[in-house]
Amino acid sequence: MAIRERIEASIAGALEVSRDGPAPPRLAEALRYAVLPGGARIRPTILLSVATACGDDRPALADAAAAALELIHCASLVHDDLPCFDDADLRRGKPSVHAAYSQPLAVLTGDSLIILAHEVLARAGDDLRALRLIRALTRRTGMPHGICAGQGWESEPEIDLVAYHRSKTAALFIAATEMGAIAAGHEEEAWHDLGALIGEAFQVADDLRDALMDADTLGKPVGQDALHDRPSAVSELGVEGAFARLDDILAGAIASIPSCPGEAALARLVHLQADLIVPKARAGSRA
Amino acid sequence: MAIRERIEASIAGALEVSRDGPAPPRLAEALRYAVLPGGARIRPTILLSVATACGDDRPALADAAAAALELIHCASLVHDDLPCFDDADLRRGKPSVHAAYSQPLAVLTGDSLIILAHEVLARAGDDLRALRLIRALTRRTGMPHGICAGQGWESEPEIDLVAYHRSKTAALFIAATEMGAIAAGHEEEAWHDLGALIGEAFQVADDLRDALMDADTLGKPVGQDALHDRPSAVSELGVEGAFARLDDILAGAIASIPSCPGEAALARLVHLQADLIVPKARAGSRA
Repeated sequence: MAIRERIEASIAGALEVSRDGPAPPRLAEALRYAVLPGGARIRPTILLSVATACGDDRPALADAAAAALELIHCASLVHDDLPCFDDADLRRGKPSVHAAYSQPLAVLTGDSLIILAHEVLARAGDDLRALRLIRALTRRTGMPHGICAGQGWESEPEIDLVAYHRSKTAALFIAATEMGAIAAGHEEEAWHDLGALIGEAFQVADDLRDALMDADTLGKPVGQDALHDRPSAVSELGVEGAFARLDDILAGAIASIPSCPGEAALARLVHLQADLIVPKARAGSRA
Repeated sequence: MAIRERIEASIAGALEVSRDGPAPPRLAEALRYAVLPGGARIRPTILLSVATACGDDRPALADAAAAALELIHCASLVHDDLPCFDDADLRRGKPSVHAAYSQPLAVLTGDSLIILAHEVLARAGDDLRALRLIRALTRRTGMPHGICAGQGWESEPEIDLVAYHRSKTAALFIAATEMGAIAAGHEEEAWHDLGALIGEAFQVADDLRDALMDADTLGKPVGQDALHDRPSAVSELGVEGAFARLDDILAGAIASIPSCPGEAALARLVHLQADLIVPKARAGSRA
């Protein structure tokens, strides 16, 4: 099965778990709305690509890990869009969850998706690798290293920029490479840097998209960094400087891939994902 | 060590995990604020009492389970107090988290505590019982059987009252008895009913407190059920009827305790917890 199909099947299975009983119908619907049809599924794609490069000897566990990671990512988007954070009414080209369903249901959708992510891993079988996967996921999601910490830095009078970027954006990419390795029975340490560098590249690309693209193309509001006075590679380095930085980071990411049978395929994937992130912005900027 | 000391030591250890690195200081402070000094710690007390009744052969695992359950409970209080839900500015006699720290930090505090609960269990050791504990916790926390579902029912035009009460209040008491049994290596099924009945008793007691007590004594706003037109045992049965119902449920709870070495001690605990919940309201009502 192709990676995208594995991801969607695993996410669909996870959502079925969340409906195994008399569930409040609107909250059940909001969960599906938040997760389907989904965006590029970049994080679980990286996770399964790393698992494949490592031999993927327990594909069901890798699939569970991919679904769990994407559920957490979707949860973070639902909460980040809330009026008290980004106050974003648009996400992936449609109304955000609180705009479509209400704030209470958006809070509960995020909470439920976080819990479902852990449930999917805990249900993946009596396998100690599942515990290691949960350890890696919680470490990159909660406090002090995870995306909650990243978002938390935005409420501080003084930001630790290194900790902020590492936790806000890189954390889930680190989770992707670490969890891919763990699911396939490898040690995660060797895979940390690849995730961190992909995360860094993604942050720079996101800054570029926010500065250069229009809301219709992007499917969410643009100019948010300048509006909220958030640190950005574009404000720091300028547009051309940010593109140069992106190229450097991607070269470093590919160089960091540990020796493994799938090394070359993984390097191609990193290039491919990079092209998916910024093609139009780059074309527009350098034309 | 006494049960209360075990709970506090385990929670303190969990909060240390959440500070193991350069964390955003206000969010780290808000996490402690939400969890300490804490209320009656009823759920983890029940959990450790059941674990003790079952032999408690892995006390470190039981302690982790107790902390995880209380962290989830505290997370639910922080989110339930938000302006979009109960809009409660007081909790345990002090400003609620969003009142003290801001709405963004309250959302993130709840999210971080949910994740920390799972992290504590996943870090408790390479033990398949930890996976079973995470399964039990997620089942009673998320969708469709857990407290998220319970809160979600309040956003429905029509409420399934049985599912609502079971998930809104009973769920974490079921988690308490099930997780206590699992931590000590017992099957959880036999312990389901005790948790469900304690949860039902607690719901009736909570309805009575909301109807009869004043805000200063309770440490949070009262009259919320009538204000938000929520279903309540008092509105359904009257005050005396609700007290009679409470006695019936507690008798059923004690009768449901599975045969085990700690059976008698556990029965005493149920009585003791019941006395803790409603002494003043009952004295006032029946004087």
